[in-house]
Amino acid sequence: MTNPLPQGAVIGILGGGQLGRMLSVAAARLGFRTHIFEPGANPPASHVADTVTTAPYEDEAALTAFGNAVDVITYEFENVPTSALDLLGALAPIHPGREALRISQDRITEKDFLSGLGLSVAPYAAVDDAASMQAAIAAVGAPSILKTRRFGYDGKGQARLKTSADADQALADMAGAPAVLEGFIDFSAEISVIAARSPTGEVACFDPGENVHEGGILRKTTVPANVSASLRMDGVLLAGRILNALDYVGVMGVELFVTPKGLVVNEIAPRVHNSGHWTQNGCTVDQFEQHIRAIAGWPLGNGQRHSDVVMENLIGSDMDRVPNLAAQAETALHLYGKAEVKDGRKMGHVNRITGPASA
Amino acid sequence: MTNPLPQGAVIGILGGGQLGRMLSVAAARLGFRTHIFEPGANPPASHVADTVTTAPYEDEAALTAFGNAVDVITYEFENVPTSALDLLGALAPIHPGREALRISQDRITEKDFLSGLGLSVAPYAAVDDAASMQAAIAAVGAPSILKTRRFGYDGKGQARLKTSADADQALADMAGAPAVLEGFIDFSAEISVIAARSPTGEVACFDPGENVHEGGILRKTTVPANVSASLRMDGVLLAGRILNALDYVGVMGVELFVTPKGLVVNEIAPRVHNSGHWTQNGCTVDQFEQHIRAIAGWPLGNGQRHSDVVMENLIGSDMDRVPNLAAQAETALHLYGKAEVKDGRKMGHVNRITGPASA
Repeated sequence: MTNPLPQGAVIGILGGGQLGRMLSVAAARLGFRTHIFEPGANPPASHVADTVTTAPYEDEAALTAFGNAVDVITYEFENVPTSALDLLGALAPIHPGREALRISQDRITEKDFLSGLGLSVAPYAAVDDAASMQAAIAAVGAPSILKTRRFGYDGKGQARLKTSADADQALADMAGAPAVLEGFIDFSAEISVIAARSPTGEVACFDPGENVHEGGILRKTTVPANVSASLRMDGVLLAGRILNALDYVGVMGVELFVTPKGLVVNEIAPRVHNSGHWTQNGCTVDQFEQHIRAIAGWPLGNGQRHSDVVMENLIGSDMDRVPNLAAQAETALHLYGKAEVKDGRKMGHVNRITGPASA
Repeated sequence: MTNPLPQGAVIGILGGGQLGRMLSVAAARLGFRTHIFEPGANPPASHVADTVTTAPYEDEAALTAFGNAVDVITYEFENVPTSALDLLGALAPIHPGREALRISQDRITEKDFLSGLGLSVAPYAAVDDAASMQAAIAAVGAPSILKTRRFGYDGKGQARLKTSADADQALADMAGAPAVLEGFIDFSAEISVIAARSPTGEVACFDPGENVHEGGILRKTTVPANVSASLRMDGVLLAGRILNALDYVGVMGVELFVTPKGLVVNEIAPRVHNSGHWTQNGCTVDQFEQHIRAIAGWPLGNGQRHSDVVMENLIGSDMDRVPNLAAQAETALHLYGKAEVKDGRKMGHVNRITGPASA
């Protein structure tokens, strides 16, 4: 895809959640139409999309029709089944590409890849059974955290080990799924870099945000992060190295731990990222438009920030706060139109502008 | 409508052009779904709407189904046929209300209303035939401008009179339509105030922008306007007086001439307005969301500006500039997804952030 996508071209999006929804709006803003592929009925993205296909990822006829109807394909989550990608890849370009997906779908593959680039990651060891669990504890120690290798999100599929005595329970929690034991990192802050790369190799990063998680779910991102300028620059350079190594096209979220020894990569996500939602009200070109620009072969925005922002997720019953939030000055609501409020479900987020961009 | 609209409520929008499109996106951002009613096929708003009805405004069955499917109705243009409003008004609340539409649909009714509020307007006189044309010239003089009383937009339905010798040609240009002769105003600048009012009487205005027209079409809006702070305040107060007099609910665009004797009202538009597009990149809550908040009975945004902005319309072949504009820093593109480029057709606009908000 060397030519920029023209006006009216159709962008196919796998997944109809809030990320697909905000990608769809950004695509429309640049004159594109969107086609959402999503198994569930009435997904958030369908409210702002031109076309919606409701079908499972195993429906080859639906996938084929979708692939033939779009000019480029992207996705809002990294666990798209390989069989669907095989079929779709023959019909339209998929960005970000298969290699980025393959790597980010498996925590061990991802850590091997990052280590191979010379980046720091937490100590880790594969865990498939009681024997490898013992070996892993010997290598990684405790406290540590056991995670499924695949399909984890928002803290699901994770078990903490305070001491090695927690090993049996943690292993049982995995329910037989291949896992990885990760050493606990003593970090002073978690930051993330939202980085973009175009097909021509142009790279642009947004300023790192500082994240606070609660119960494994992102609660808040503050920009600028309260870390030194040199650490922020380290984060940006490191993200660029990852993108270039993958010949990446699109936006990636890179989560980093700030430690006394420097930055440690927690994980990467080959898509727009919750910790980049602040860009909607802090930048001229936000992460969603940046992703669309990249996969459409357009020039990237420069990522510059015009305002300081605090982004807070609205989770479950946080929706009760909406009337109050709506009445607050300099507060931008972004609600996802989800039919049902559930505990732990991301229902929206709020960006609070805290002032003009500070250093 | 005293209770705020809840999440998932459906907002009906009459008209599927770019204003309906941007209203639809704003509505989605607050968790609402939208239903567009538009006679033309594949309208810009349909790309970002939940539901679209394609039918003429004379189709009573389609209007009835639409009216029964939505919780509140708004519109993107002021010339909605009265018969459609009569039918729809019995099915769902319409905001802004009928009185604002009635007044803004007829230039003479509008000027009578504004004069009645004690506001300055250009000298004017009704013109229906050659005799009233002569009387109007005697009253208003020349240079002056003859306009159809109804259905004018973007400079259409207008004829300029340099001297009274141009009267016959100008009258012929009206093709028999009832018209109004307006005295030429010697203005140093044209500004507009985008004002909003909620059902509880809360009023919020955005900072006045300074407009440049070319060939009767808005070319550029610059914020802040290069006029004194006291004149800007006059504009805001005057807009508030208009909204209160109409018990108005929603956003209104008020176009004003800056003259040595103060502000003269050019015209009012009971809807979001092209000269308010800068708010998308200059404010936390833009004019589209402000309109949705008002008609949904939500608290209004405060209208505060975080950045200075220059908005430029992309008209017809201006679309050739898009690749270049996309590569410029701090430049936000907003393209309307219109299938065909035509001379004089508004295809998009671009907001250039020129710095943090100045006084």
